[in-house]
Amino acid sequence: MAESVFAVPKGFKAAAYSSGIKKSGKLDLALICADKPVECAGVFTTNKVVAAPVRITESRMHQGLCQAILVNSGNANACTGNQGLRDARRCGDLVAEALDLAPELVAVSSTGVIGVPLPMHCFEEHVPSLCRMLSHDQFDGVAKAMMTTDAFPKMCCRTINIDGQEVRLLGLAKGAGMIHPDMATMLAFVVTDAVLADGLLDAALRQSVNASFNRITVDRDTSTNDMVLLLASGDAENQEISEGSAALGQFCAALNEIMLELAKMIVRDGEGSTKLVRIQINEAANDADALAAARSVATSQLVKTAFFGEDANWGRIIAAVGYSGADVDPDKVNISFDDVAMVSNGLGLDSAQEARASEVLKKPEFTVTVELGLGEGSAYYYTSDLTYDYIKINADYRT
Amino acid sequence: MAESVFAVPKGFKAAAYSSGIKKSGKLDLALICADKPVECAGVFTTNKVVAAPVRITESRMHQGLCQAILVNSGNANACTGNQGLRDARRCGDLVAEALDLAPELVAVSSTGVIGVPLPMHCFEEHVPSLCRMLSHDQFDGVAKAMMTTDAFPKMCCRTINIDGQEVRLLGLAKGAGMIHPDMATMLAFVVTDAVLADGLLDAALRQSVNASFNRITVDRDTSTNDMVLLLASGDAENQEISEGSAALGQFCAALNEIMLELAKMIVRDGEGSTKLVRIQINEAANDADALAAARSVATSQLVKTAFFGEDANWGRIIAAVGYSGADVDPDKVNISFDDVAMVSNGLGLDSAQEARASEVLKKPEFTVTVELGLGEGSAYYYTSDLTYDYIKINADYRT
Repeated sequence: MAESVFAVPKGFKAAAYSSGIKKSGKLDLALICADKPVECAGVFTTNKVVAAPVRITESRMHQGLCQAILVNSGNANACTGNQGLRDARRCGDLVAEALDLAPELVAVSSTGVIGVPLPMHCFEEHVPSLCRMLSHDQFDGVAKAMMTTDAFPKMCCRTINIDGQEVRLLGLAKGAGMIHPDMATMLAFVVTDAVLADGLLDAALRQSVNASFNRITVDRDTSTNDMVLLLASGDAENQEISEGSAALGQFCAALNEIMLELAKMIVRDGEGSTKLVRIQINEAANDADALAAARSVATSQLVKTAFFGEDANWGRIIAAVGYSGADVDPDKVNISFDDVAMVSNGLGLDSAQEARASEVLKKPEFTVTVELGLGEGSAYYYTSDLTYDYIKINADYRT
Repeated sequence: MAESVFAVPKGFKAAAYSSGIKKSGKLDLALICADKPVECAGVFTTNKVVAAPVRITESRMHQGLCQAILVNSGNANACTGNQGLRDARRCGDLVAEALDLAPELVAVSSTGVIGVPLPMHCFEEHVPSLCRMLSHDQFDGVAKAMMTTDAFPKMCCRTINIDGQEVRLLGLAKGAGMIHPDMATMLAFVVTDAVLADGLLDAALRQSVNASFNRITVDRDTSTNDMVLLLASGDAENQEISEGSAALGQFCAALNEIMLELAKMIVRDGEGSTKLVRIQINEAANDADALAAARSVATSQLVKTAFFGEDANWGRIIAAVGYSGADVDPDKVNISFDDVAMVSNGLGLDSAQEARASEVLKKPEFTVTVELGLGEGSAYYYTSDLTYDYIKINADYRT
């Protein structure tokens, strides 16, 4: 495999393997490993039906330390009862044994079909060799091994300079269906070599997830397996990033960029999706109203289908704002597609504007801005269009 | 037109006409008219973006009296500003003038495209002739004139016997898209000749809507134009139906049957729909939890697409229950398709059961029952499958 073009943070290695969980023979098992136990923060699905690996990993991450992340695709190990919990623990133990780690330092993560026991022979047979394959240039393979219905692997990196030291962040994500806050059906792992003061990693992760993975929707379905982990090796040897410092602002900005870029990749790769649309709500009575309105427009099946039809159907947009629960005075609403005004004070503009708006809808990425004229609240959401291929992919997924 | 096979309640006439609002030349304008001012109850959309005719009619219905309902399809008169309000009032005035009624006794109702002013010349020209066409056998035409993307007209009637007197109820509805509580994008008008004590009509309507139109979803989009009106002429000359009486139970049962049947017709006619599925939640911690879980499963895009794929994908169902907000213990969940058990205590049953379940999913109508094993709460929801044709219809609707 060619050397990665991504700048891998110091102190991390990775490996990926085709273990046979996917019948296609594609990559389906991967490992990210730090050279030593490192600081870790995690965010997990809010679904009450929680997959076994999420339960195991969430409890282990409470200690704030992690050394390895084992991830498989092709099987979610969800709704698998006590057997699933035993299997998830055994997966972690296999890594711990091969690398001589404490089992509590191993995070396990699965994505794929629900309700089928993990094929443990794949893990028993191949985890030891996976552990021997660890190298600096295999992160591309990890991103591929996480894929289920994803059309492309999702990676993003940033390098920042803190007090003369280069600090790297690298993020990997998977997700295309069952995408909805909080959280989307997705896995994301971000590794960095930054040195941060105690407690900052968790706060940085939470605000970043809230502004990225909690602002996207493909199909309103929240999965059983979502997990975002952030690991910091501290190997960059930068001066420790402290609370309230400019360096923390720099670090969080880079983290936010990575997370939002990965989140947008997930929507762009939304099952059957042909468009990435930003729904921007401005001038709401408050931010909560703006978020409710943005979510309502972003999740409206009729709006999403109109995007696919490249139809500037603002009636569906204003209707979705109307039932969002947000304060709305229809006579104050303005709507535009990119910079083309379409609705002014609740009334549609002329057919010349509609023709211009239709041109915007032909683009693969655009922004719908809705001004409510009631206050200072604003929020955004990213969504996809709803297409024939979404139906095709999901009507046939298991068969 | 052939005589209606429906038993029309005494004291009502109807008419329908092709006025040119629909370019196809199909029926698009209709009138239901009582011989005198009659008792009326109404329920209206909860969308904050409310169409002009809803605003006019809701304010008029507060008095509890109505004599005529004018309805048009092809144009919703929504997001049309002050011009829309003037137009809606003018439509009512045209009926009032032609029939010599007080304008406050005329309900107006519109359904169709949002954001386009009503073509008033169609009303000016044809409402007077519509008023001259009123007869007892034109209710079929009204049901047709209400249709937009509907594939078939929706009518339902019941005749009950109260103290030896025949009492009739006749309901008409339209709706196929923008269907979601509270309310669905729909219009429904029910007329009866029952004599009821003061105040009972409104209570009967509200409980009935709650158990029918508020228990269906096609696409989670709540429209700007929903309206259900119930008119009672009292011409059956039955002994007045009083509060707490057996006769009220009989009347409400018949009303509920009509409403639920119309509601199910709407789902069966859901845009692109090929299946009508009842989601039944039992043994929830309480009824509110059951309703939340039923709604979550019924609105899940992934579940609805699996229904289209005739895939007994119970993982998506349990995931939708898991994110519904209802109390769930995954290890206590049972799921069945009609009488075929598929999941027991959170675990999938064998492939023989899955094969039997797949047979159930091939049927045009079936029930998914989810038992949560936590209490006595139960609720149901009716939903459709999500299909290629839904995308086709809604990507192309305006163009």
